[in-house]
Amino acid sequence: MSTKLEERQKQRQDEIITAARRCFRASGFHGASMSQIASEAKLSVGQIYRYFSNKDAIIEEMIRRIIDYRIAEMEDKTQTDRMPQILAWRQTLSEDDDALMLEMSAEATRNPLVAAMLVEADARMFANACEHLKKQCPHLSEERIRCCVEITAVMMEGSIYRRLTPQKVSASELEKIYREILNMLLIVN
Amino acid sequence: MSTKLEERQKQRQDEIITAARRCFRASGFHGASMSQIASEAKLSVGQIYRYFSNKDAIIEEMIRRIIDYRIAEMEDKTQTDRMPQILAWRQTLSEDDDALMLEMSAEATRNPLVAAMLVEADARMFANACEHLKKQCPHLSEERIRCCVEITAVMMEGSIYRRLTPQKVSASELEKIYREILNMLLIVN
Repeated sequence: MSTKLEERQKQRQDEIITAARRCFRASGFHGASMSQIASEAKLSVGQIYRYFSNKDAIIEEMIRRIIDYRIAEMEDKTQTDRMPQILAWRQTLSEDDDALMLEMSAEATRNPLVAAMLVEADARMFANACEHLKKQCPHLSEERIRCCVEITAVMMEGSIYRRLTPQKVSASELEKIYREILNMLLIVN
Repeated sequence: MSTKLEERQKQRQDEIITAARRCFRASGFHGASMSQIASEAKLSVGQIYRYFSNKDAIIEEMIRRIIDYRIAEMEDKTQTDRMPQILAWRQTLSEDDDALMLEMSAEATRNPLVAAMLVEADARMFANACEHLKKQCPHLSEERIRCCVEITAVMMEGSIYRRLTPQKVSASELEKIYREILNMLLIVN
């Protein structure tokens, strides 16, 4: 019986997160209230509160899932090889995730609680990426690994951000240059 | 007399933009209404409408000024040399401008009018940066210039975005690597 209850609870939680994501995408951080999220999830506000004590708890879970997904995708061995392509063609795992993270980042500039969530999320991503790169490039120093991860993160975030405006150069030319940059980063120094 | 009137009008416009910036920073895109902006500027809503027909017109002027400032700073000859340092130490022209642009970018993911403003702003920045780099590096092909500008823009935007979370590596190590990357970009190919 307990397993069925747990399954039901998990499903409810998923529904609430899905509804919250839709609300944030449609109306922005402040446009989405607990009652709007409840209405979008077709639940009462009271039901929502049984799963999440407030909007911040929903946001925390939403960010946690986005980061979990990004970390899981990093495990894909081909992703490092595909990085120049991902950057040059501005490929993304999820446009919705990117837009939600952008929304949360804008909010983080004035909301210390959301800022702390992003700090924690980035620390987790960063540690995972370092571990991952270390396995692939055991010849690199700890410091070099961290620098590579930081610069790759900068290029990933920058490329995602620039998806908001049209690409102004040939993506295949860009891909070659990104490949040179990434090769350079992974050379023993 | 006309000059004095123009001056007065210019000053009013400045006051409104300053008030709007404060409102957007404090409450986000949707938190800031025309009446809040008026109240922040210590003007009546009617007075605001004599200068700007709606909130979109205020935003457009605000973005125009941010881009004008960034373009003016690009003219500073030393900025290209300082680029590795700017990137590695995550230096910024204006934290407020960055936060406002982040706010507008989040809004652009659901608001086609704001998205169009950002597209226009980026096109202007991009064209200016290309012209600027061409003067400094006349040996580079048109295509290479555009690729360099794109990748530098990616790294700038990414670095600005990552200021939201703590720097996890030595900035002086990063600076060396960014210098290598930028040198590589400017090599004739």
